[in-house]
Amino acid sequence: MLETLEIDFAKGNGLVPVVTQDAVTGEVLMLAYMNEQALAETVQTGRAVYWSRSRGLWRKGEESGNHQDVREIRVDCDADTILLKVVQHGGAACHEGFPSCFYRKREDEGGWRTTATRLFDPATVYKKK
Amino acid sequence: MLETLEIDFAKGNGLVPVVTQDAVTGEVLMLAYMNEQALAETVQTGRAVYWSRSRGLWRKGEESGNHQDVREIRVDCDADTILLKVVQHGGAACHEGFPSCFYRKREDEGGWRTTATRLFDPATVYKKK
Repeated sequence: MLETLEIDFAKGNGLVPVVTQDAVTGEVLMLAYMNEQALAETVQTGRAVYWSRSRGLWRKGEESGNHQDVREIRVDCDADTILLKVVQHGGAACHEGFPSCFYRKREDEGGWRTTATRLFDPATVYKKK
Repeated sequence: MLETLEIDFAKGNGLVPVVTQDAVTGEVLMLAYMNEQALAETVQTGRAVYWSRSRGLWRKGEESGNHQDVREIRVDCDADTILLKVVQHGGAACHEGFPSCFYRKREDEGGWRTTATRLFDPATVYKKK
């Protein structure tokens, strides 16, 4: 049975947080936001489109080529958070060149350790304007 | 080499979003928020503590018994989002009785399908007050 749902954009002033997960490995890649238009375009095109305060409508990978093909769209119990399962092109979701934005792990003694390997140098992918 | 980092609580008016993932299966369980105190208590006790607008400081599982033992704390590139990897006690993170809050999947024809099995009836776990 299919349920009709209104995604609750009002709570976040027009935005909902979106958790993006690698559909193959299960690794959490990033957290971003969508407005209603970004979600509609994601559904329509099958590619992840977010909304960012600095970029506005943000077609992920438009500049870097590292777009995300959407395999699943999920919604949480309160209908105010989205989970995307994606195939990440280029292997790196993070603009810092790492596969995941969550490349730093807290150590018990305090402080954060980078546990991932950089796949590209941001300076060569994002041209300075 | 360990890095010292200031988590950016300012951007979200004292709160950061927290993605919580099952440390064993990799399933994304929920999205919640922490303030500085919740993060400090999570680090100190090894159990997930969030902050919610309705509950204030929210020691996950205090009422349901379904607490979360923290295995890893990660931070994203902008230091404004946390990723927790946890062992979920009782098997269900969601107050609706599902293992994950993201129990509904969007179908291509539109509409949302519940793809998970309920592990408990919320009415028996959360006493009406």
